[in-house]
Amino acid sequence: MKLYVAPRAPNPRRVRMFLAEKGIQDLELIDVDLNAQAHKADAFRRKSPLARIPVLEFDDGRVLSETRAICTWFEGHTPEPNLMGTNAEERAFIEMADRRMEWYLMLPLANAIRHTHPGLAPLEQPQIAAYGESQLPKALETAAWLDAELQRQPWVAGERFTIADITAFCALEFSRLLRFKPAEAGLHALQAWRDRVAQRPSAQVS
Amino acid sequence: MKLYVAPRAPNPRRVRMFLAEKGIQDLELIDVDLNAQAHKADAFRRKSPLARIPVLEFDDGRVLSETRAICTWFEGHTPEPNLMGTNAEERAFIEMADRRMEWYLMLPLANAIRHTHPGLAPLEQPQIAAYGESQLPKALETAAWLDAELQRQPWVAGERFTIADITAFCALEFSRLLRFKPAEAGLHALQAWRDRVAQRPSAQVS
Repeated sequence: MKLYVAPRAPNPRRVRMFLAEKGIQDLELIDVDLNAQAHKADAFRRKSPLARIPVLEFDDGRVLSETRAICTWFEGHTPEPNLMGTNAEERAFIEMADRRMEWYLMLPLANAIRHTHPGLAPLEQPQIAAYGESQLPKALETAAWLDAELQRQPWVAGERFTIADITAFCALEFSRLLRFKPAEAGLHALQAWRDRVAQRPSAQVS
Repeated sequence: MKLYVAPRAPNPRRVRMFLAEKGIQDLELIDVDLNAQAHKADAFRRKSPLARIPVLEFDDGRVLSETRAICTWFEGHTPEPNLMGTNAEERAFIEMADRRMEWYLMLPLANAIRHTHPGLAPLEQPQIAAYGESQLPKALETAAWLDAELQRQPWVAGERFTIADITAFCALEFSRLLRFKPAEAGLHALQAWRDRVAQRPSAQVS
């Protein structure tokens, strides 16, 4: 199997961290040069028609894209340690937590970066600064809510580490491009959680 | 069980259509008045802290939000007809298809509407017209790719009707606010698929 990734991009990192948590190492990593628009070239679009990474390519030629879908596949392939729920009930609640991190933390943070950072101009066209600037307050609102959650429970989805922690962590790591640090915003539980996650071996992939 | 919904909003409609496909009727529907900001009131935030609908409230007081997470719960509760995959392998590929519809069709269409339509001003602040106008071409790119897919296969995820068809259909229905019709853009396979879905009993919920 081949996994198409890109250094520093948050979504490939989510998959790599997920794989590291499961101890899965038997796949080939292939870097896609986003700044050179390699993801939009015909050769890559034959694997990922909407030009997104990460992409998982199976040995039989089938391709699977979308971060969370790739994680679902590996959760079935290597069930332990469980990161997405052991039955439909738990899967639903972990999916809720993961989606909250994805839609209300990662998405506004990513848009704040992609629409304002000169380094992202090759990837986000048109960049609309006013939109980017409007998104950081929305991300901070989610971060403040998450901080309160993490004062009551150790992990994003509750009592154990799950895919939702991976999504939130990769969102915060990407937001370092904005020089955002939870502690400086008074979000000490979020900062402590972030620092705890950063010590996991899986956090070393980037 | 109670399901908090809002007329004409695309995400509650996705859940209601999913429930209709499964023939689930034993829950109370409660309308939330979005234009009156009822979703941001303290009483509702106690159920949905990030002020999103739909929300499923169980009889024991627990709440589950996020459209796709609610669908995951009902898929476990009422497995037939299957809409999200019968095993992890199939679940992953259907999730890919569903996410493509959600992220690259519904999201840019919704932003095109929310940032330009006067009727959505109460819900999207600040409205940034330039951003809204930049999103329609992105949605149309996905629609054109989807049209080509639907020339090769009958349903969004392949050979059978799944949650991905529900997401795509509700996205297109919401885009009627933009007066977008696939056939007028030359996307005849997409139009034929849309018209086929519109004839299902589940499409009658709104």
